[in-house]
Amino acid sequence: METLGHLINGQMLATGERRQAIFNPATGEASKELVLASRETVEQAIAVADAAFPAWRDTPPLKRARIMFRFKELLELNADKIAALIGEEHGKISHDALGELQRGIENVEYACGAPELLKGEHSKNVGPNIDSWSEFQPLGVVAGITPFNFPVMVPLWMMPMALVCGNCFVLKPSERDPSSTLYIAQLLQEAGLPDGVLNVVNGDKEAVDTLLTDSRIKAVSFVGSTPIAEYIYSTATVNGKRCQALGGAKNHAIVMPDADMDNAVNQLLGAAFGSSGERCMALSVAVAVGDAAADSLVEKMTAAMAGLKVGVCTERSNDFGPVITRQHQEKVVGYINSAEAQGARIVVDGRNVQVPGYENGYFVGATLIDQVTPDMQSYQEEIFGPVLQVMRVDSMQQAMELIDAHEYGNGTCIFTRDGEAARYFSDNIQVGMVGINVPLPVPVAYHSFGGWKRSLFGDLHAYGPDAVRFYTKRKTITQRWPSAGVREGAQFAFPS
Amino acid sequence: METLGHLINGQMLATGERRQAIFNPATGEASKELVLASRETVEQAIAVADAAFPAWRDTPPLKRARIMFRFKELLELNADKIAALIGEEHGKISHDALGELQRGIENVEYACGAPELLKGEHSKNVGPNIDSWSEFQPLGVVAGITPFNFPVMVPLWMMPMALVCGNCFVLKPSERDPSSTLYIAQLLQEAGLPDGVLNVVNGDKEAVDTLLTDSRIKAVSFVGSTPIAEYIYSTATVNGKRCQALGGAKNHAIVMPDADMDNAVNQLLGAAFGSSGERCMALSVAVAVGDAAADSLVEKMTAAMAGLKVGVCTERSNDFGPVITRQHQEKVVGYINSAEAQGARIVVDGRNVQVPGYENGYFVGATLIDQVTPDMQSYQEEIFGPVLQVMRVDSMQQAMELIDAHEYGNGTCIFTRDGEAARYFSDNIQVGMVGINVPLPVPVAYHSFGGWKRSLFGDLHAYGPDAVRFYTKRKTITQRWPSAGVREGAQFAFPS
Amino acid sequence: METLGHLINGQMLATGERRQAIFNPATGEASKELVLASRETVEQAIAVADAAFPAWRDTPPLKRARIMFRFKELLELNADKIAALIGEEHGKISHDALGELQRGIENVEYACGAPELLKGEHSKNVGPNIDSWSEFQPLGVVAGITPFNFPVMVPLWMMPMALVCGNCFVLKPSERDPSSTLYIAQLLQEAGLPDGVLNVVNGDKEAVDTLLTDSRIKAVSFVGSTPIAEYIYSTATVNGKRCQALGGAKNHAIVMPDADMDNAVNQLLGAAFGSSGERCMALSVAVAVGDAAADSLVEKMTAAMAGLKVGVCTERSNDFGPVITRQHQEKVVGYINSAEAQGARIVVDGRNVQVPGYENGYFVGATLIDQVTPDMQSYQEEIFGPVLQVMRVDSMQQAMELIDAHEYGNGTCIFTRDGEAARYFSDNIQVGMVGINVPLPVPVAYHSFGGWKRSLFGDLHAYGPDAVRFYTKRKTITQRWPSAGVREGAQFAFPS
Amino acid sequence: METLGHLINGQMLATGERRQAIFNPATGEASKELVLASRETVEQAIAVADAAFPAWRDTPPLKRARIMFRFKELLELNADKIAALIGEEHGKISHDALGELQRGIENVEYACGAPELLKGEHSKNVGPNIDSWSEFQPLGVVAGITPFNFPVMVPLWMMPMALVCGNCFVLKPSERDPSSTLYIAQLLQEAGLPDGVLNVVNGDKEAVDTLLTDSRIKAVSFVGSTPIAEYIYSTATVNGKRCQALGGAKNHAIVMPDADMDNAVNQLLGAAFGSSGERCMALSVAVAVGDAAADSLVEKMTAAMAGLKVGVCTERSNDFGPVITRQHQEKVVGYINSAEAQGARIVVDGRNVQVPGYENGYFVGATLIDQVTPDMQSYQEEIFGPVLQVMRVDSMQQAMELIDAHEYGNGTCIFTRDGEAARYFSDNIQVGMVGINVPLPVPVAYHSFGGWKRSLFGDLHAYGPDAVRFYTKRKTITQRWPSAGVREGAQFAFPS
Repeated sequence: METLGHLINGQMLATGERRQAIFNPATGEASKELVLASRETVEQAIAVADAAFPAWRDTPPLKRARIMFRFKELLELNADKIAALIGEEHGKISHDALGELQRGIENVEYACGAPELLKGEHSKNVGPNIDSWSEFQPLGVVAGITPFNFPVMVPLWMMPMALVCGNCFVLKPSERDPSSTLYIAQLLQEAGLPDGVLNVVNGDKEAVDTLLTDSRIKAVSFVGSTPIAEYIYSTATVNGKRCQALGGAKNHAIVMPDADMDNAVNQLLGAAFGSSGERCMALSVAVAVGDAAADSLVEKMTAAMAGLKVGVCTERSNDFGPVITRQHQEKVVGYINSAEAQGARIVVDGRNVQVPGYENGYFVGATLIDQVTPDMQSYQEEIFGPVLQVMRVDSMQQAMELIDAHEYGNGTCIFTRDGEAARYFSDNIQVGMVGINVPLPVPVAYHSFGGWKRSLFGDLHAYGPDAVRFYTKRKTITQRWPSAGVREGAQFAFPS
Repeated sequence: METLGHLINGQMLATGERRQAIFNPATGEASKELVLASRETVEQAIAVADAAFPAWRDTPPLKRARIMFRFKELLELNADKIAALIGEEHGKISHDALGELQRGIENVEYACGAPELLKGEHSKNVGPNIDSWSEFQPLGVVAGITPFNFPVMVPLWMMPMALVCGNCFVLKPSERDPSSTLYIAQLLQEAGLPDGVLNVVNGDKEAVDTLLTDSRIKAVSFVGSTPIAEYIYSTATVNGKRCQALGGAKNHAIVMPDADMDNAVNQLLGAAFGSSGERCMALSVAVAVGDAAADSLVEKMTAAMAGLKVGVCTERSNDFGPVITRQHQEKVVGYINSAEAQGARIVVDGRNVQVPGYENGYFVGATLIDQVTPDMQSYQEEIFGPVLQVMRVDSMQQAMELIDAHEYGNGTCIFTRDGEAARYFSDNIQVGMVGINVPLPVPVAYHSFGGWKRSLFGDLHAYGPDAVRFYTKRKTITQRWPSAGVREGAQFAFPS
Repeated sequence: METLGHLINGQMLATGERRQAIFNPATGEASKELVLASRETVEQAIAVADAAFPAWRDTPPLKRARIMFRFKELLELNADKIAALIGEEHGKISHDALGELQRGIENVEYACGAPELLKGEHSKNVGPNIDSWSEFQPLGVVAGITPFNFPVMVPLWMMPMALVCGNCFVLKPSERDPSSTLYIAQLLQEAGLPDGVLNVVNGDKEAVDTLLTDSRIKAVSFVGSTPIAEYIYSTATVNGKRCQALGGAKNHAIVMPDADMDNAVNQLLGAAFGSSGERCMALSVAVAVGDAAADSLVEKMTAAMAGLKVGVCTERSNDFGPVITRQHQEKVVGYINSAEAQGARIVVDGRNVQVPGYENGYFVGATLIDQVTPDMQSYQEEIFGPVLQVMRVDSMQQAMELIDAHEYGNGTCIFTRDGEAARYFSDNIQVGMVGINVPLPVPVAYHSFGGWKRSLFGDLHAYGPDAVRFYTKRKTITQRWPSAGVREGAQFAFPS
Repeated sequence: METLGHLINGQMLATGERRQAIFNPATGEASKELVLASRETVEQAIAVADAAFPAWRDTPPLKRARIMFRFKELLELNADKIAALIGEEHGKISHDALGELQRGIENVEYACGAPELLKGEHSKNVGPNIDSWSEFQPLGVVAGITPFNFPVMVPLWMMPMALVCGNCFVLKPSERDPSSTLYIAQLLQEAGLPDGVLNVVNGDKEAVDTLLTDSRIKAVSFVGSTPIAEYIYSTATVNGKRCQALGGAKNHAIVMPDADMDNAVNQLLGAAFGSSGERCMALSVAVAVGDAAADSLVEKMTAAMAGLKVGVCTERSNDFGPVITRQHQEKVVGYINSAEAQGARIVVDGRNVQVPGYENGYFVGATLIDQVTPDMQSYQEEIFGPVLQVMRVDSMQQAMELIDAHEYGNGTCIFTRDGEAARYFSDNIQVGMVGINVPLPVPVAYHSFGGWKRSLFGDLHAYGPDAVRFYTKRKTITQRWPSAGVREGAQFAFPS
């Protein structure tokens, strides 16, 4: 069985540390062995990055950007391999894995614009003959801690921008599916990144805590669940670091009476069940305004779900694959059970789905639950599975109150044709990413990603323009040259 | 004796709470009595601000900005009164107080540009017929906690920008000299700010801790000493708030052999002793490169210091006034004593200065210390008094290593005519605000203020462009309108 | 009778030149005498401005902006007097004149942000140790030529931004109503503008041609009719100047079947008849989609127009006043006649309106014409009078084709509730300023004003961000400091 | 002999038109035959571009940018072939041709950031519930007319930005060396550009005049000599087009007494003689401040020039090649003759250079002329050959007056170590591109290129941020949604 180690200083290292298995979620079998970094190993990675920093910081932004141009080419050339690595460990169907990669590549493309993005502001004559300008200088060594659900995309939210800003990077990917992450890190080396500028350490809490407390780490980017995000944020900030920690979500769509229902159903299908609902932007609650809209939605959705196929990643006709672990499968099923127990109606039931030939896989079928109410556990918590819950309200205002009362504020959407409804909703809803007839309003790479309320801890959002500010510190320079008669004569002397 | 209370919901309140005296530092006598807010009072202020938020948030930015236009006029009309209030409680000479006010007004002027500053980014066709844009929405109720040394300027770093961004504000000014702060808050009301949008609570740790823990406070801006800044930052962030906490400083000037020494001395005079050195941007260490430069500097500085006058704020010919408290006076003198004990040379000694008629005032005279070394306590800590220490090194490189080894990184300066020296210094020095022949490189209001290392905790700097980001949260909206044949015919029907 | 001269170098000059009368359009009587500048007088104004340029150019932007802060105060203090001056010569009702002034003040407010607006872009390390930045430097002396219909607002579109960018300015206002323009120029002087920085010359073609050909004039901003705009643009550019020349308009509103018709009528009322339709953004054509919408629009509009009052400027209950001259009155009536002759239906006829006591005034009543077709002269040309024409089409697509076929492309609007209609319209229509349920989509002062097609000649729009670019020229500086061992030793010597 | 035609609608066309020879300047022999487009052929190209516009305009900017990513790859893959094509027709040495290509690729890299660069500004609540935003929409079909001296770089200044902004393009390259230009156009097609979006027409004045007068061409970018630039600008603007026309130059370097002379000489060598001085940014005049500096400069420059090699492009050890034509060779020699006749001293004489084996090539050797004065013809006009002229002045102020008195204002440079000198020079000199110790201050691709005075006609500079503004027109949208109770109830009805 293959052993996966760390990428430190351009070398793969895999010696002398604790190990644990990586499983294929479609078969339930262990496929590889992962080395878990000790504190010493993580410190070694940090030291290497710290040593690489001075030269990398002084490399012109355009040269740093050109490594990203090459990296983009390599990611595109190796797309199928990357998708396969994702599929084996995460279970995601190949088209979905390629989609993840594509969104990640968009962040690489954005990073190619580093020279433009790093411009400071120059002010002439802030006083007589005094000029002032700002520079955005890199922080030093920064860290990323990334989740299992997007093993390629989320690291690509962080690394390209951190690197083109002139930082060195230590990445700790998810221990569930690190192969694709490690592979793209190697491609980045191949694209011309100097050794030591990027290092990947695999590990668990010991590795995380080392990153959170070592004084050489200047900033931490995290994506995961809210309790961990909160721990990361408070620990990193107490240790004097910048931190942006993205947590959980419960994303609602309001379905208005005037919505194009066929379009809404079609959109919700992918947004609710794609990638088995294991996305922080998954649309997991549909709030129908009025029973007519609700009935129509449930009826059309039920029909549409009949065509969904769950199965293994290598079969492209499948719509989604297994969830990530046995425990998670049980947890998702438990939420469906609890909804049923609390009085909701299970319209389409994915609890006992069977995938022939993959009886030990961690599959859950697409599930539709109607008559969900705010007191239900399945509503209050993030399920992170292929489950769409329908709620019924009497007005758009009620729908918005429901959304604003939830602890999360990541993404949300409204289906309507009405300009006023769209504007009122997007203006007032207490959610960071808003879609108007767009169920997964993930900002494009040249905008920034971030939720509100307990979905994000920190000031600055992930990737896009905010990433420049997160990965750099402002320096302001004020300059005056005292007069010494320098322009009057050829024989001027400098003051001694 | 006058009693100073709180400004809550447009009213001055001063009932039923703990009290402490405010002293005139030039006489050592109590002049007013200050009410210290209980938790309940602070919560009342927060509740009032919270209630005022929805209407204020929906007020167009231009209308919010117009209150700042009017506020500027009122500050200018009442400048002498403001300066007098500062002088009575802080001791600052009137021209210095007017200077502080002027820098504060510049922040008000910047806030007048709110409509420009709050623009989001709009992207057409992020996909076919899909648009996306960002909005920078206010946070809600935000708090400011400000220090004694700039009772007018530092509140004006915070309030105008927080308010024009659409937030409501709770300010806790210094308990040493709150009169001028309260007065400008009243002027802001008079300028047209709706009741409850700005509230001022006087108090001590109880008030501070209430602000740090109440969930309705969304962000905290702080300026003060580093230990308190660190406490504020870690407490606020653990409580889920944004925080920017500005702390202490030890600002060095490098004096290069080619510097225009007369100019350098003239500049240092104000930068070291102005406002008794009680500025986080005070230039307190001069690092001379080479003994020739050092000797010349000490000689010329000694001569120049002979003309400095310390005394009461009302006498405009004075250069600076007393320090803030008896304890602080003793602390400053203690640092001079310790430097002497550790082997430094006291060139000009301000320890026993006498101001006739003000024998009980907290005065310290301008002090010049030569031969200071990095191991001395007076070097390692922030003195916050009228003390300039001279160090001697052999090269610019050594001077920079000295600066970078210090825990603080607020401001710094180089005196030189040489373009290469200026550029190498400003590029590499690990300090956030850099002057080239500018000893107090405080960024103008349209740039942002912030130190590095342990001089600032947080991602975003104070005032200027960063203030917009600190006082707003990004919302990203993605919009698509499904096609319904709307443009083909006059009799189109909306989907039901 | 009062004689109005020129403002040159801070002085009013009115000697020895040709003269013509200024009329009160409500009475038809001459009220003042205007001096028309000769070539020599204009050259004197240019020379004075040229001499004032070096010092003004070097004045810090913040100081220039502060004159605008003060100017805003003075405009507000003297609002009634300004409105009265406008009314006497233009005929505009006082509330309308105050509205014009208010829009002008918004441009002054924007100009107060000059320090922010003039920031250049700073790039560190465009190559190893090479930096590059841009500066936006003033052009020198620039000129403005402004129309009668907004004697205060249009000059305020130009002067504040040109001046805060560091240019000197020569303004030639309309010879019909120059009093208010001259008065605000004097207020600008009073606000602290140095003599010679702004000069106003009254005149006719001789003055214009001098401005267009004198090599010391670096840029010309013009607002007026299209034939003159075209002449100004080609003459100025052939003479090596920058030019932005804004011309005529024919602004259409599409009224969709789903529009809130009461709202649309209410909005159109002001947009069509306000200021007697003498606005380049007047809404003069309503294109109804479907006969049902058209019939409803005509019916409701007819009813609403019954309440409109035409009369003298001093009576605030009036809705609009006379047109500017006898000839223009005849021209407007002629267009109504021609429409009637070509087969349109005159629904409400304003041709024979009588204003008691003002029988010699140049009044035209509000006129509504239905069944207008593209071949009619009244449709093809700009009427610039209180005439709203209604056209009928079968689809939104047809309405858009109609608009795009017209030679002008200034403003346009759609009345609808439908998001798709709004987005398709605003995306595709070949018009520079688009309203969605906003009939007069004049951009706010922090955006820029400009039409497309033959409504504007030039690259950059008026006021707002574009004005910064129009009134400055880009300078790009690239800087490298060769190494001379400056940081290694204290005793370094400069190369001889 | 190969015949070169046009690229129209993705096809090479070469039938039935006038023809002229292309020469190899190193041998003086004709190498290819060029087809010269008639008016009809140019109109065909315009029609094709016009037809391609609607689909291209609606292609998302990111998709347009991705063609540039691919184009960059193809340019890099085919760099040697491109350099060879340049060399054969222009004569440029291969390393110089590769340098030109590299600078061109940087513009392609910048264009890859289109999604970021095309962002408009979004303002919430410009009034109550009214929003406004700007969009930068493409113009339609735009044209480029490019010079012989950079057959690859200058087209790459224009095409990538024009295209990613959504415009279609018609390029007319120089008739002297069109092969490399045509080849990169084909690579752009290969990169995925749809047919018709880019078209290349070869030709002479007939082609140019067609582009300048056809109403479907919305903008013209030109680089060439000043008389032609002026013709292009006035003709294009009179025909209602945007135009930016870059003309000639006379770029001066000030050599200050404190300059690092070895560095200055080394820099000047490349800047004066590289590419035979056939660059609009060539440094052709060195102004020495003081005779000591002048003597040192002339002495060291003479020594350095001894090592320069002129010859054929294929020999990499050569420093520069022939000039472009026999006539131009004669013209350059004529300027040297005239300088000599007018009293200048020919220090190094390149008039009779012989390149063995290439006796018929158009070679001129590197020439140094001292004691040049402002009245000489060789000073007043642009030589565009490998000739460096030295002038002597007594002060920096005199040097600057000399520069400012010249009709051109393209680039300039100062050699100094002194911060004050650098700042005073860059602030005050009337030249658009300024170097501080950088003799060829060509702005990097993410800034913009443009001279002042008679070196550029138009408002906006070439490439970089200005290119976005030049190749797009601003549209401002103002939006309000009237309230219809849409959020109160589920059963709301739309207004009919």
